[in-house]
Amino acid sequence: MREGQRTASAAEAVVSEPSAPFLRACRGLPVERTPIWLMRQAGRYMAEYQAVRAKHSMLDVIRTPELAAEVTLQPVDRFGFDAAIIFADILPPLIGMGLKLDFVKGAGPTIENPLRANYDIDMLATPPAEEHLGPTLEAIRLVSAELAHRDIPLIGFAGAPFTLASYAVEGGGSKNYARVKALMYGEPAAWKRLMTKLVTVQADYLLKQVKCGAAALQVFDSWAGLALGRDDYVRFVQPYNRMLFTALQRSGAPVINFSTGTSAYLADVAAAGGDVLGVDWRMPLGWCWQQVGYDRPIQGNLDPVALLAPWRELKHQIDCVLAEAGGRPGHIFNLGHGILPQTPVENVARLVDYVHEAAIREG
Amino acid sequence: MREGQRTASAAEAVVSEPSAPFLRACRGLPVERTPIWLMRQAGRYMAEYQAVRAKHSMLDVIRTPELAAEVTLQPVDRFGFDAAIIFADILPPLIGMGLKLDFVKGAGPTIENPLRANYDIDMLATPPAEEHLGPTLEAIRLVSAELAHRDIPLIGFAGAPFTLASYAVEGGGSKNYARVKALMYGEPAAWKRLMTKLVTVQADYLLKQVKCGAAALQVFDSWAGLALGRDDYVRFVQPYNRMLFTALQRSGAPVINFSTGTSAYLADVAAAGGDVLGVDWRMPLGWCWQQVGYDRPIQGNLDPVALLAPWRELKHQIDCVLAEAGGRPGHIFNLGHGILPQTPVENVARLVDYVHEAAIREG
Repeated sequence: MREGQRTASAAEAVVSEPSAPFLRACRGLPVERTPIWLMRQAGRYMAEYQAVRAKHSMLDVIRTPELAAEVTLQPVDRFGFDAAIIFADILPPLIGMGLKLDFVKGAGPTIENPLRANYDIDMLATPPAEEHLGPTLEAIRLVSAELAHRDIPLIGFAGAPFTLASYAVEGGGSKNYARVKALMYGEPAAWKRLMTKLVTVQADYLLKQVKCGAAALQVFDSWAGLALGRDDYVRFVQPYNRMLFTALQRSGAPVINFSTGTSAYLADVAAAGGDVLGVDWRMPLGWCWQQVGYDRPIQGNLDPVALLAPWRELKHQIDCVLAEAGGRPGHIFNLGHGILPQTPVENVARLVDYVHEAAIREG
Repeated sequence: MREGQRTASAAEAVVSEPSAPFLRACRGLPVERTPIWLMRQAGRYMAEYQAVRAKHSMLDVIRTPELAAEVTLQPVDRFGFDAAIIFADILPPLIGMGLKLDFVKGAGPTIENPLRANYDIDMLATPPAEEHLGPTLEAIRLVSAELAHRDIPLIGFAGAPFTLASYAVEGGGSKNYARVKALMYGEPAAWKRLMTKLVTVQADYLLKQVKCGAAALQVFDSWAGLALGRDDYVRFVQPYNRMLFTALQRSGAPVINFSTGTSAYLADVAAAGGDVLGVDWRMPLGWCWQQVGYDRPIQGNLDPVALLAPWRELKHQIDCVLAEAGGRPGHIFNLGHGILPQTPVENVARLVDYVHEAAIREG
């Protein structure tokens, strides 16, 4: 028993003092430079990625571990990002639950059989991740093996329950979230069953990503803040996000709680859990820290559109983000949302170099 | 001269003590009941409106004063709202400026010749409202004459410069506002010319709406908060909104400054001007007052989707809004965004009655 305790302490010591700047920032530890990675960093703005996608559909790339690993590594190799994020999508877990998902060119993701009745929710399956998301887990094994000797952490990810529920009920993107909110308001018991199933599937999926080599996790609640006011968030979303973040604690990996449009109740979002808070570009970082406490690491939040601007303007906006962060250890530089396909690659290279050098000036 | 002063004082006295609850709330005066109207209250959820639209396109209704007047009055007659809002749209002023606008069924508004180069901006016309928006001004005359003896104020409205600029540059709705922001960031001089022209056209249009009988005005900045962070708002939008609100002061009519998604910089939005702040459903009203000061009247902010919910849930959400307002005089009840076409009319009737009765309980 004493030996067990000693082992646990040793493991804790290792966990609490990682060397990679990204993992250090996730724990609020001092860093020599501000770590940076970008949401959707493996994407269409890169010619290398387009070359792969010219021959394979998005779902094919996700389902072929070697291809997923290849595009995951492309931006890390090219730009020197401080973390990789596994190439995948938040929606495939819905396929394993029984929903017929397709990515329609131009129209975005659509679900052929969206949830329309309580019965549909009762019929949703909750299979273990290895049964339906095996290729992504395998891609994580490949990438983390490749990155291990370079001390670059790999981030695993999944969608938060509300965002997935929205897709599952609306059948795709939505302008006003009327169907999913009508379910939430009108059928609270069915809502609870749906959200609980989603937590089960996502917690299992994320924990297995860590087992396969992910060193950190990000949970994307991309839609809650666009759809919901504070009272709704607290009643219908926060309890399930809390369940999910609590379940993820036992992985030992830091977890990033990312949302957009939640500035009116950021403290409630932070209270749901997660080690790091990921925020969109509409909230000044200093203001975010004021809302959630200065001991909470924050990731963000350059406007993705700033990367389309001339350098004079792009530099101004990077400087603003860095100034708001004030050289605080718990800052991970990122965009406030995914990088746009039309982004010039030279701007990405310049951004990464500038952030790395700026941090050296500070330190 | 002394007589002139006396007349001015008499006029001021009339302006400062209106009897209609809506106008009283706009000035923060005590009211006997909370005034209520709904954005897009003349709309597809009403059979009377659908009957008119079955025979006429939306642009036809807007351009035929008798039809616009008819649909403007329908919801006031049926539900007993405390204000009417002229049936119109924020986009037609762009037609007079030289843009080819059409409302495509299913796709929303589209512009055939969006602004693509500086030259396009230089070519934009700034005609006086009576030359290109005459039918709306005439409809305002008809409705205000009809409503005068009922002491129900008519609200005129227009879009804010950023929201109109977005449509004009993007050519329609947008997911990430990349084009309009690229113009803003990349060509600040062209941006200034575009925004200044929009302020010229909109200020003229709104002032003439008051001359024709509008008793209050609402400026819709529906998109700024979805697109922009605080720094961008302060640099690229706030100066023009301030110009517009300053110009509108000489009308003597109260002005509502409505925006959505601006919770991270609501104080900056409020500082741009307007007597009343209109807010979306995502920010609790009490929190809004905390940001902008308790002396500022606020309009809002029931979630439009709540009107699709069973009464138990709808009542809960109305109660929340009323509790956040706390019976304060400067509260105008409204939705946080436009009413949805699928809203059951009986819920609208119940909402209006409930808000009117609740206020009596308070008073």
